[in-house]
Amino acid sequence: MPVRDADDLSLAYTPGVARVCTAIAETPELARDYTWVSNVVAVVSDGTAVLGLGDIGPSAAMPVMEGKALLFKQFAGVDAVPICLDCTDVDALVETVARLAPSFGGVNLEDISAPRCFEVEERLRDLLDIPVFHDDQHGTAIVTLAALRNAARVTGRALGDLRAVVAGAGASGVAVARILLNAGIGDIAVADSKGIVHSGREDLHPVKEALARDSNKMGLAGSTEQALAGADVFIGLSGSTVSEDAVAAMAPDSIVFALSNPTPEVQPSVAARYARVVATGRSDFPNQINNVLAFPGVFRGALDVRARTITEGMKVAAATALADVVGDEVSEDYVIPSPFDERVAPAVAAAVAEQAHAEGVARK
Amino acid sequence: MPVRDADDLSLAYTPGVARVCTAIAETPELARDYTWVSNVVAVVSDGTAVLGLGDIGPSAAMPVMEGKALLFKQFAGVDAVPICLDCTDVDALVETVARLAPSFGGVNLEDISAPRCFEVEERLRDLLDIPVFHDDQHGTAIVTLAALRNAARVTGRALGDLRAVVAGAGASGVAVARILLNAGIGDIAVADSKGIVHSGREDLHPVKEALARDSNKMGLAGSTEQALAGADVFIGLSGSTVSEDAVAAMAPDSIVFALSNPTPEVQPSVAARYARVVATGRSDFPNQINNVLAFPGVFRGALDVRARTITEGMKVAAATALADVVGDEVSEDYVIPSPFDERVAPAVAAAVAEQAHAEGVARK
Repeated sequence: MPVRDADDLSLAYTPGVARVCTAIAETPELARDYTWVSNVVAVVSDGTAVLGLGDIGPSAAMPVMEGKALLFKQFAGVDAVPICLDCTDVDALVETVARLAPSFGGVNLEDISAPRCFEVEERLRDLLDIPVFHDDQHGTAIVTLAALRNAARVTGRALGDLRAVVAGAGASGVAVARILLNAGIGDIAVADSKGIVHSGREDLHPVKEALARDSNKMGLAGSTEQALAGADVFIGLSGSTVSEDAVAAMAPDSIVFALSNPTPEVQPSVAARYARVVATGRSDFPNQINNVLAFPGVFRGALDVRARTITEGMKVAAATALADVVGDEVSEDYVIPSPFDERVAPAVAAAVAEQAHAEGVARK
Repeated sequence: MPVRDADDLSLAYTPGVARVCTAIAETPELARDYTWVSNVVAVVSDGTAVLGLGDIGPSAAMPVMEGKALLFKQFAGVDAVPICLDCTDVDALVETVARLAPSFGGVNLEDISAPRCFEVEERLRDLLDIPVFHDDQHGTAIVTLAALRNAARVTGRALGDLRAVVAGAGASGVAVARILLNAGIGDIAVADSKGIVHSGREDLHPVKEALARDSNKMGLAGSTEQALAGADVFIGLSGSTVSEDAVAAMAPDSIVFALSNPTPEVQPSVAARYARVVATGRSDFPNQINNVLAFPGVFRGALDVRARTITEGMKVAAATALADVVGDEVSEDYVIPSPFDERVAPAVAAAVAEQAHAEGVARK
């Protein structure tokens, strides 16, 4: 709004603004009508797990948060503010974001290292009545589930028919396993740097202990490559490599998502010798698994209905809507839409909003 | 920047952004070149002293911070983000703003109640190497000093010739007294709700104790109205009233700044019967003392030279530059420029930048 003369000034600032303040003080919910908070997301990081660069600190993490803010606006009209915090302690992160909350309609956590990221998100979700979403976990999980739904269709199977192996038990690996379990995958085993996570291991963080209980029905142990023998799906989120022999030993019509950037766990051309569907995180191959397919629409939908939270059901609904954009054109080389498909964000937003209503977490 | 295709996306986000992050991690100072922080100010409040409304909380304070952000952009091209914090403890405020600091080029504190605001600002100034400026204190102080310089000129006196009485020892009253002392006023006495602050009082907060030591050379005690007998200048920042008789008892060619909003301490038409120069905080009378004359230019100048702090000297320089905009047109009804005078922000910014260089607190 331009401020051209004394009248504009008295409206935008004192004394006019006092009436708006008074109205909100009397009816706090009006803050969502009378201020920008209902369309603004804080993109918050502590700079401890930035891209593949690791713990580079808050100042050096700013460009990633700025890029994210740009994508929020570009793809879904969501205003976003990059916030990099000069603290890494879990308690400090939680209390700082909680103190910031009155200024924002949602919180997108970003590039916070595992396993701290799990506790930070869980505590903030409990504390706050606005959406809190760790994109490294759930953005990747939503897009991976969407692509896997379509990959299963291409190969004539249902999710429940598939046995998957995930390499990597960081933020994204754990979240991908969780959403696939919620969506009804047949079986899934997750490997960290010490091998497959199973309940016999005594070196597990509580997050992995819980995963050990809920996953790996077959009781696999050992390496990722051992677990891949006869598996239907490989999902790489580890930055490590998988040999051609291990891919060759997977079941017929296998599905390989080699998502590490910039170097996939296995080169797509190699994987394609054995796998029916191959996806990567890169834009120069077919089937790019890119978080930008999820987070703008997820927040658009959540903000549109002023959701108090983003539930697991809303994440699964987002994935289903994303998969459905592909529709009948689905093929081995087209299991996920392009980031520039303009149908994506509106479809995801609508599904998220509808599910929020269905679960009673929408405010309007 | 628009994101139209995969090339744009890989530049604005991964993998392109990784090179920017790496450069900043190696040379932290590059954050000021490669991110938005060098032009972004956080407008931070805890909602405890909002306009004349008092402690209405962070959500209800948002409209004021949004209005302030608008004025930063409109008057000086400074990007500003409204941040209202859900905490009021001094330690919590200080640690929260300190944690936010990597994301911003400066911090404008706003509407934090006295006396907590003094400690919050002082500790943040010590902790951070970016400008921290409590506008309720220093914005008012700068504009008041500028107007008083010109009022003194109109009446043929120097600042050192004047004895002033300030009604109100909150954030603005204390800061006005401090800047006038720094600028060389003859004498100044400040009154709080219990009367004139003097070293004989035993009920004083440390901030007022210090003020008692440094002000009130004449050793006045009692009420504001008693102190006004024979005084040259009255500055009202209290929300209280001053009687016509008290104004009548001031020295010849007196100067009355009745700055409370929306009701001045004395009606301008009444004050004008006795005083030579009358100013208010309102836009519907001549000589409006409005903070918007100071804060945009002050931050513009500080950000332009990447100042580490805003010194007392920079504040006095801002006031001098602001007074000088009036120039030879100075008169009883024109001691301060209009907020819409386009010369103001550039003049203030240039003076602040020059003084930052002179004092060695500029980074470029």
